[in-house]
Amino acid sequence: MTVELICVGTELLLGNIVNTNAAYLSEKCAALGLSMYYQSVVGDNPKRLEELLETAKERSEIVILCGGLGPTQDDLTKETAAKAMGKSLVMDERAREEIQKYLVQMHHSITENNWKQAMVPENALVLYNKNGTAPGIIMEGETCTMILLPGPPGELIPMFEQQVYPYLHKLQPEVICSKMVKLCGVGESRVETEILDLIEGQDNPTIATYAKTGEVHLRITAKAEDQQAAMRLIQPMEEELYRRFGSHIYTDEESVTLEEAILALLKERSLTLSTAESCTGGLLSGRLVNVPGISEYFKEGYITYSNEAKEKLLHVSHNTLQTFGAVSHETAKEMAEGCKKAAASDIGIGITGIAGPDGGTKEKPVGLVYIGCCLREKTYVKEFRFRGNRSRIRDCSVAQALNLLRSAILEDTDK
Amino acid sequence: MTVELICVGTELLLGNIVNTNAAYLSEKCAALGLSMYYQSVVGDNPKRLEELLETAKERSEIVILCGGLGPTQDDLTKETAAKAMGKSLVMDERAREEIQKYLVQMHHSITENNWKQAMVPENALVLYNKNGTAPGIIMEGETCTMILLPGPPGELIPMFEQQVYPYLHKLQPEVICSKMVKLCGVGESRVETEILDLIEGQDNPTIATYAKTGEVHLRITAKAEDQQAAMRLIQPMEEELYRRFGSHIYTDEESVTLEEAILALLKERSLTLSTAESCTGGLLSGRLVNVPGISEYFKEGYITYSNEAKEKLLHVSHNTLQTFGAVSHETAKEMAEGCKKAAASDIGIGITGIAGPDGGTKEKPVGLVYIGCCLREKTYVKEFRFRGNRSRIRDCSVAQALNLLRSAILEDTDK
Repeated sequence: MTVELICVGTELLLGNIVNTNAAYLSEKCAALGLSMYYQSVVGDNPKRLEELLETAKERSEIVILCGGLGPTQDDLTKETAAKAMGKSLVMDERAREEIQKYLVQMHHSITENNWKQAMVPENALVLYNKNGTAPGIIMEGETCTMILLPGPPGELIPMFEQQVYPYLHKLQPEVICSKMVKLCGVGESRVETEILDLIEGQDNPTIATYAKTGEVHLRITAKAEDQQAAMRLIQPMEEELYRRFGSHIYTDEESVTLEEAILALLKERSLTLSTAESCTGGLLSGRLVNVPGISEYFKEGYITYSNEAKEKLLHVSHNTLQTFGAVSHETAKEMAEGCKKAAASDIGIGITGIAGPDGGTKEKPVGLVYIGCCLREKTYVKEFRFRGNRSRIRDCSVAQALNLLRSAILEDTDK
Repeated sequence: MTVELICVGTELLLGNIVNTNAAYLSEKCAALGLSMYYQSVVGDNPKRLEELLETAKERSEIVILCGGLGPTQDDLTKETAAKAMGKSLVMDERAREEIQKYLVQMHHSITENNWKQAMVPENALVLYNKNGTAPGIIMEGETCTMILLPGPPGELIPMFEQQVYPYLHKLQPEVICSKMVKLCGVGESRVETEILDLIEGQDNPTIATYAKTGEVHLRITAKAEDQQAAMRLIQPMEEELYRRFGSHIYTDEESVTLEEAILALLKERSLTLSTAESCTGGLLSGRLVNVPGISEYFKEGYITYSNEAKEKLLHVSHNTLQTFGAVSHETAKEMAEGCKKAAASDIGIGITGIAGPDGGTKEKPVGLVYIGCCLREKTYVKEFRFRGNRSRIRDCSVAQALNLLRSAILEDTDK
């Protein structure tokens, strides 16, 4: 079954707000097994909305509209959608009562234009709204059903979950399931090349690739008559991915992040961690601390942006800083070892680099970053030459530090 | 001039990611005085994209596409757009070199499909990409110009700012100027209430409000025959905003961030800074270190997630932690004072709170955060009760810590 989303609101076209409703509704529709091929945003302009609705009702079985149900003159979604479906508007007594009740509860005065919100298309299903004044609307047509929802997420989300989701669920005969396999330490195009044969001619299940900073995510999706049958289609594909990418796969759970997978490894092996950051200035520790429950394993973090702080807190030798410079293999190594020692942790990570825009030289250009990771007696140091602006260089550094940390733990045989 | 936005990506249709690119590009286009009437999202499907492009090129003078420029088989934006403009693809040698350079620097192996990204439509303007492998493309047609941009924001944003914005600016016959006035320490609804009279019936200039985490941005926009005339329209409005919001305004420059404004204050007053973070785990120092040139002023940062680290590194008293708890007014105060002393800096900031999802109690619920800021002999501590998930609570904490830091510096009379 096909569904299409139309969000109405000039504030979206001006970029005043981010369209989180679109992400929310898309995810819900995908989970319902509905195929969404188009999303549009249009302003509070009845002519352009009308054109869009004419196209949408031809190509999609369900059209979800959100926004433009307010009481003001430029809120015209309901009027325009009713016209597209050939319906006239009638007063809905219960909607009128609910609006009155809501406004009284909120201590708002009732103005004449509020009653506009109680007008609904004839024969429509009315979705009463407990969190605002605009009722939602379902208009069933012969080939197309239109669903109108209020724009504020605080009204849209409960209305969708309580009233629209069950309605759509009944319409949908098939179930869609998907599984996310997340990889690190391997580039997007290499991943793509290695699964080319799986993607070519794929039908059910399908694999989609998502590139993230320092990671690649693969989503396997299958359609079937029930969830079990869909999972049976997914499983052999997932096993194949594990055969091909092995330990590059850090999770097969949608919601698990790389830092969470690392925490699981730290827990499993009872390893504690400390960090020393220069150019990333706390972004690595910030990501690690994003994981609830890390406090037992993440002992201390040091932000040592200056040479003075590197010497004082991490005991990086003055000689090393003088001879090789703050951005060097040697300094990264001593930072990793120094924070490990200072924090008395099992693992220490040190990051030093030139994030720019200034400070680069021919020998040490902007983007040069050294990452050290010391686990017990062994210290790994890797050199990177990232491109991009300051913020990108710092994000890449954090991603690669997490990769290095994970692979150091996996290589550690002294479990 | 009309502009239309088409975002390509199945991950948007599946709701895997929020379309922040649309908000970013819409805001930029509005600032350029371009009229955006439509935004669409379509999956990685050439047939549907082709249909959309046929419609778009008839109704809009500029069509911006983003996403689908990757190296993989399902990335077909470039091929489809070139076809819609009647262009064939040719190899661009410089693009090829840039891709190679980028991949070597990133230590990624080069695979055959990478070269697909070096193919560009004939006679196109190529926007070389310093932050990834996909070059952007500008194809000029008789009635419609198509602009293709890579999907990842880390690539799209710098490419737009450095290459597309100046290009679009030149196309625009009327001059549109805007000035961004950025406020902190005051809520969005208060700002909106206080400028209601200015917004009502506004024509030229106009004011638009953008709510950011812990900040409110106001953009004043004016149209005129030349820049000077536009700025003459903007100036009295800006002065009015300064009269109303005073020191809540931290900058009137588009590109200046709150952390940059703070660095300017630190420089002006020769003040040094150190930080001690618990629940934010380095996000505050990460934001501070985002500013080039901070190294002279930002002395040291401590991530003290555990009580042990708070005692050892910051000398928070054992008794305070036992009596009031790690998340308390007293601990925040001692963290701020402790890191100031340890780093021998003029200012110390301490953050401690419950970011959730676990760890909340009735007395100390998730979202409770204390921020301390110690400047010379004076320590300010503020209590916050943020709402939202872990990541939102941490972002709000960082924003409010920057606000507190800024107001502490402004209140410091011992210049």
